[in-house]
Amino acid sequence: MLIADTVAVIGIGLIGGSYGLALKARGLARCVIGVARRETTRHIARSVGAADETTDDAREAVREADLVILCTPVGSIADMAQHIAPTLQRDCVVTDAGSTKVGIVRDCEAILGRRFVGGHPMAGSHETGPQWARADLFVGATYVLTPTPQTDPAALETVRTLAEKLGARPLLLDALTHDELVAFTSHLPHVVAFALANAVAAKQKENPHAAQLAASGFRDMTRLAASDPQLWTDICLANRDAVLTAIAEFERQLRALKSALVDEDATGFTAALRAAVEGRASMLEHGSLGK
Amino acid sequence: MLIADTVAVIGIGLIGGSYGLALKARGLARCVIGVARRETTRHIARSVGAADETTDDAREAVREADLVILCTPVGSIADMAQHIAPTLQRDCVVTDAGSTKVGIVRDCEAILGRRFVGGHPMAGSHETGPQWARADLFVGATYVLTPTPQTDPAALETVRTLAEKLGARPLLLDALTHDELVAFTSHLPHVVAFALANAVAAKQKENPHAAQLAASGFRDMTRLAASDPQLWTDICLANRDAVLTAIAEFERQLRALKSALVDEDATGFTAALRAAVEGRASMLEHGSLGK
Repeated sequence: MLIADTVAVIGIGLIGGSYGLALKARGLARCVIGVARRETTRHIARSVGAADETTDDAREAVREADLVILCTPVGSIADMAQHIAPTLQRDCVVTDAGSTKVGIVRDCEAILGRRFVGGHPMAGSHETGPQWARADLFVGATYVLTPTPQTDPAALETVRTLAEKLGARPLLLDALTHDELVAFTSHLPHVVAFALANAVAAKQKENPHAAQLAASGFRDMTRLAASDPQLWTDICLANRDAVLTAIAEFERQLRALKSALVDEDATGFTAALRAAVEGRASMLEHGSLGK
Repeated sequence: MLIADTVAVIGIGLIGGSYGLALKARGLARCVIGVARRETTRHIARSVGAADETTDDAREAVREADLVILCTPVGSIADMAQHIAPTLQRDCVVTDAGSTKVGIVRDCEAILGRRFVGGHPMAGSHETGPQWARADLFVGATYVLTPTPQTDPAALETVRTLAEKLGARPLLLDALTHDELVAFTSHLPHVVAFALANAVAAKQKENPHAAQLAASGFRDMTRLAASDPQLWTDICLANRDAVLTAIAEFERQLRALKSALVDEDATGFTAALRAAVEGRASMLEHGSLGK
């Protein structure tokens, strides 16, 4: 069943490319047009089958589209909405895949009106580029939609159906709640990974043997610190207040562990670690992830 | 080539069991005796082939041993050394696999004298029990040895050869340097993982949707928070000063990121993230881990 005849995916990297692959593999679109500035990206997107056609001209790309998916970095989504607005078809639905929602929904709704539906598929990787795209990227993932009272119900239904047909689990939240939650579940882990990598690197500068003493724990705990710095600057700044709140709660938890250590309070320290083990298990049990 | 006729592995869990499997698989010992308090553990150790014989009596186990490997939790290694001292053969070499070294080396050397060689194979997992033991656990891993001026050179040579024959890379460090380095590369990542799990769990209590918004980043960043609370309380308390120093450096790095966010200093924030990406890459490049 087609969701749309023509879908324009603007920003055809890991996420955008995965939309393209999944739309084609599941027969959800007749034609996927991929937009990217760099010819290399466009070439890869075509070779892996993430797009039928590619262009660097977003305005041209959306002319025939029934559905536009904005997959550019968080900081440029609203600018892109502004850029494509003049050439959108009257009934074209627009959604995005940005990791933050308050600012994007406010700006895109102001520009595009009721046809815009904010979205955030909770899937991805620290890799970038369409060579990492996967048709099953969204399978089993929570897919947040953030309609407002102004959102056209038919547009919402289109994007909700898209999420379901991609194999994801749609979850309707208001944009602010979304941003506050992902500040904890996604943005905080990234910030912590970057800070941890910097702390260990500082020690390595002092004693180069540190690298030889880094085991899988270090590697796993800093994998997110291999993420794109520019992308994560955009995200953290776009969600600044919520990220700062999450950092504050993390600092509070870290201080509790530190106090127990300073006081040599083994019982208190163990209790805090045990709470962490249980809290994590509960998160994973009620979430959509494996262990 | 036999390293020892009879090896007693005291504490035959994930690490101890991996010694057993590797010693047998590589023909390094004729007989491996595994010691564990619980019959279930002993049964599993025998079934997976991690020990030829098992017992709950460490004193009996070491009677015939040429080499004893202490794999009990960090907090009980010195007590175990005290316990087995009376029945050790005159030429028996004793080593351990504890994650901290200063206290263990001081205590075990006082009890066992020159025959004791502190060791720490940088391998493991958050799993526990001999069912997770692997004959190749030590392959490619850094294996720290912490001899003192008192250590018998022949005993050191035995344990260095053991490390090599297990496929690991021996690295001689003084105990204090070892403890300061692992505080950063191993203990800090664990403490951070526990604190992060607690912070996100606190948010989940406020809004249960948090679990649905936890993606692979959360899972990966808290995997270490599935580690055994008692074991990690022991380790962090045994290495308290160095762990507190590492936490302080981490807090400094986190504060730098926070300040940049508060000031909306995108350039400074990106620079700090970029430093983290490079620092991590350098650690992995100079270490013995994959990506």
